[in-house]
Amino acid sequence: MNKKVIIVGGVAGGASAAARLRRLDEEAEIILLERGEHISFANCGLPYYIGGTIQDRSKLLVQTPEMMDRRFRIDVRVQNEAIQINTKDKTVTIQHNGDTYEENYDALILSPGAKPISPSIEGIDHSKILSLRNISDTDHIKSMVDMDAVREVTVIGGGFIGVEMAEVLAERGLKVTLVESAPHILAPFDDDVVPIVEKELQDHGVRLILGDPVMKFNDVSGNGPEVILQSGHSHHADLVIMAIGVMPDTAFLKDSGIELGPKGHIIVNEYLQTNCEDVYAVGDAIEISNFVTGQKTAVPLAGPANKQGRIAADHIAGLPSKYEGAQGTSILKVFGLTAASTGSNERTLRRSGIPYRTALVHPGSHAGYYPGAEPMTLKLIYDKQGRVLGAQALGGAGVDKRMDVLATVIRLKGTVQDLTELELAYAPPYSSAKDPVNMAGFVAQNDLNGMSPTITLEDIKERNKENTILLDVRTRQEFEQGHIPDAVNIPLDELRDRLDQLDSSKKLLVYCQVGLRGYTAVRILRQKGFNAVNLTGGYKYYKSASFTPDQDGIIIY
Amino acid sequence: MNKKVIIVGGVAGGASAAARLRRLDEEAEIILLERGEHISFANCGLPYYIGGTIQDRSKLLVQTPEMMDRRFRIDVRVQNEAIQINTKDKTVTIQHNGDTYEENYDALILSPGAKPISPSIEGIDHSKILSLRNISDTDHIKSMVDMDAVREVTVIGGGFIGVEMAEVLAERGLKVTLVESAPHILAPFDDDVVPIVEKELQDHGVRLILGDPVMKFNDVSGNGPEVILQSGHSHHADLVIMAIGVMPDTAFLKDSGIELGPKGHIIVNEYLQTNCEDVYAVGDAIEISNFVTGQKTAVPLAGPANKQGRIAADHIAGLPSKYEGAQGTSILKVFGLTAASTGSNERTLRRSGIPYRTALVHPGSHAGYYPGAEPMTLKLIYDKQGRVLGAQALGGAGVDKRMDVLATVIRLKGTVQDLTELELAYAPPYSSAKDPVNMAGFVAQNDLNGMSPTITLEDIKERNKENTILLDVRTRQEFEQGHIPDAVNIPLDELRDRLDQLDSSKKLLVYCQVGLRGYTAVRILRQKGFNAVNLTGGYKYYKSASFTPDQDGIIIY
Repeated sequence: MNKKVIIVGGVAGGASAAARLRRLDEEAEIILLERGEHISFANCGLPYYIGGTIQDRSKLLVQTPEMMDRRFRIDVRVQNEAIQINTKDKTVTIQHNGDTYEENYDALILSPGAKPISPSIEGIDHSKILSLRNISDTDHIKSMVDMDAVREVTVIGGGFIGVEMAEVLAERGLKVTLVESAPHILAPFDDDVVPIVEKELQDHGVRLILGDPVMKFNDVSGNGPEVILQSGHSHHADLVIMAIGVMPDTAFLKDSGIELGPKGHIIVNEYLQTNCEDVYAVGDAIEISNFVTGQKTAVPLAGPANKQGRIAADHIAGLPSKYEGAQGTSILKVFGLTAASTGSNERTLRRSGIPYRTALVHPGSHAGYYPGAEPMTLKLIYDKQGRVLGAQALGGAGVDKRMDVLATVIRLKGTVQDLTELELAYAPPYSSAKDPVNMAGFVAQNDLNGMSPTITLEDIKERNKENTILLDVRTRQEFEQGHIPDAVNIPLDELRDRLDQLDSSKKLLVYCQVGLRGYTAVRILRQKGFNAVNLTGGYKYYKSASFTPDQDGIIIY
Repeated sequence: MNKKVIIVGGVAGGASAAARLRRLDEEAEIILLERGEHISFANCGLPYYIGGTIQDRSKLLVQTPEMMDRRFRIDVRVQNEAIQINTKDKTVTIQHNGDTYEENYDALILSPGAKPISPSIEGIDHSKILSLRNISDTDHIKSMVDMDAVREVTVIGGGFIGVEMAEVLAERGLKVTLVESAPHILAPFDDDVVPIVEKELQDHGVRLILGDPVMKFNDVSGNGPEVILQSGHSHHADLVIMAIGVMPDTAFLKDSGIELGPKGHIIVNEYLQTNCEDVYAVGDAIEISNFVTGQKTAVPLAGPANKQGRIAADHIAGLPSKYEGAQGTSILKVFGLTAASTGSNERTLRRSGIPYRTALVHPGSHAGYYPGAEPMTLKLIYDKQGRVLGAQALGGAGVDKRMDVLATVIRLKGTVQDLTELELAYAPPYSSAKDPVNMAGFVAQNDLNGMSPTITLEDIKERNKENTILLDVRTRQEFEQGHIPDAVNIPLDELRDRLDQLDSSKKLLVYCQVGLRGYTAVRILRQKGFNAVNLTGGYKYYKSASFTPDQDGIIIY
């Protein structure tokens, strides 16, 4: 008897599973149910179609039902919604054109995805408050922003979709306000580096309101809504995009016996099996292991969804593939800036009680003597044994490359020692003889072996001013153009001759512009008996972390 | 007593060692001897200064003796040449301004580098035959090509320096001929992918002569030399650049007792110690272990040299750093093309008797629906256990990124299975949900587990036509526009219905355009009992590997 497999959800995870399964089993009956009109659409491309970077709408449709049938003999049924699963009888109840029908299955793959959170805020049902999940949302939003009357758009929520929407709408020339309830946007990034993104948004005309949740929307007749924030601030918007996050779209599983987590995520094991026999789940709706911490988490990203679809299909076909967890590698274009992260950040490690240390470097994308090098900020997080736990990078060219190298090192459970030894491709147009990743490894290695212990901005802030000296080793000119308050200045090249001016009973907190001269200074000082440590990332780090959005008079809470 | 360390050679390895040593030992006396006028110059930038991409000559001088003294208290002596080492008495004899003097040492680091090979070819002493090693060579060549009279330049040797020189001179508008004695340029690349670079050179006006060694140069009075090749072909050149390779610059060590390899490379252990006590060696002049094969080799590249300098300094200061060998990661810009490689290629593996398999994919640099994606060719080499042995990539944007990820996997001894699991940074402007590296891993995994065994162009060429069928599964239209001779065409989407047209007693060699439809076809066929295999890389691979430079009538040998 040929196996009958039903797949619920036809986008990333579901479509991947269907194609893989056919390649593994030519005889299986494969039914792909998709509630919406389209399968396998370019989810991650939707903002760029609204923005106009992608001009041809048909490019969003990666696969059509006809193509899936012709090539893979998959019975694709769009506008067919699974509304109930009977895991005892192994049947799915399906709604189509107002009618319902049943299909039995030998194996079931659930890939229902996640939907935008729609909070119970007064006035949220306004016709000019929209969210973005699928092609039809996209068409709707695009038709709105194509109208001349829409000039001012407010995006609520500074996650990936919110920031991408703010960017593409600003690039269309609209006046965009981005409202975030937390003190900073983009949770995968730590508070000390994310101001780089916030500055990029502001520099390109996006107004940022941070730390100020939406209280309600007032309906102003015939007009867009008025956005009222907790602070009391209010402003008009011709259109509001809600992007405060997503939740698993799993309400239809409520009475199925399939185990769900506290927020509705489907619980699976390493083979992506649910607690019910022959029922698998993949994609944005499932709870998975964090690859770094081992803790349970949800990672609603396309890369993991595709890999999971493949693995569920493998397991159904009898192959031993396993899903080892997700590390949450992600990347974002924000105007001229690229921001990328992988693994755990400080926030999640603190919450998990996992000790860590950090190193921060400001290398160029390639050799400084070859034209066009662009600066980046690269933050590395590692434990005392040197295992790399996470990384964040922000800058121009080459940020994506360094993030992929670091994501690879994390996946292969590498250490900061490994980072120093990586032999990466070097020619002047591409990198430096010591790549940024090598550099971050050197700094972390020098920190761990005590050659040049690093401190962070927080250590500077919380220092005891009585028994520490904040020592700026840049040139007099650099110092005069701006320095951390209370710092004293001894330029590095004078340091050896001026050691007697330093009180050796005090701890020396050394900094320079990016960290390199500080390192040399710390080496001199430590060899001369001083207890000296180096501010990783230097004054440049201090400056960029101190950026606060300019609110044209709006108070930031 | 403070340690006295002498470093011979002030460029990449030597300069790195000096700075690192000072950071480790504030008290050591450090003398850096450099035969030339400059230390720590931007070796890899020299062609780009000649070409004009780097306009400011001072940018080539990364460190000056004054800076090294001020910051690191290093006694830099330029135009001081070590001419003899007495390893018993621990002294170095130094020549300066025609005089000689001696310095004793507690530790010695040799970083003499490599020099261009100057073969004994008749007429090679011509004043218009030059080679490129240092700043003064650079000045000389640049002054020549700046002259209006120099219109036609011949570069002898298609290694990295030769190809870079050909590129930069052609970009200046000169008429460039590149002569290579081997059948192909750029030995780190295999014969099946390097034609992509050869085509790029030809498309940008560089005339290529392959497989034709230089026999002699005729001196045509008052004019540039006439270049005579083994084939009998001759042509005039206003200037000839010799770039047939480098050799270790170690003649001065002949009677030192320091062990040298057959070609003059300094023999070192994993701590970069020579056989003589307290004598270390680093950089282009040493013989090291190949990280992949474990065999002895020389890798004259800046990245390894810098790392070695650091490690030798560490060992002198008592730190336990080790050098684990080089994998030869390298990269090259050739007009709009990037070509990069890491680890072993087929040629070196065959020579070493190490069995391997290959996979080749043609992914885009990022999601096809987002504008600006550029194609690349990515070749993966791995063993039967799945360990990644090497990779080569050629294309536009993102080639460097994938090469660095693969270099990292090789360094951490990863497998093709790991490649499938890597969670790399995906957003449409940067990659696809399945990154090119994932894709290469999938192809290799399907090969190794027998789901879709791959074959290469060589297998196609050497096939027994009696008991094989060459099956093209592209569309009729694609087939008609060009196909591999003797192929039969059954488009993939018709395959299931036309299986009875295939002789199941014969082996089916399947191909499509890039390999993906071929894979699906192979899965259908194998499940139906056919012995089917897939040409990795497909027809696109066949086409690009078949490129032959156009010689305007010149015979290629």
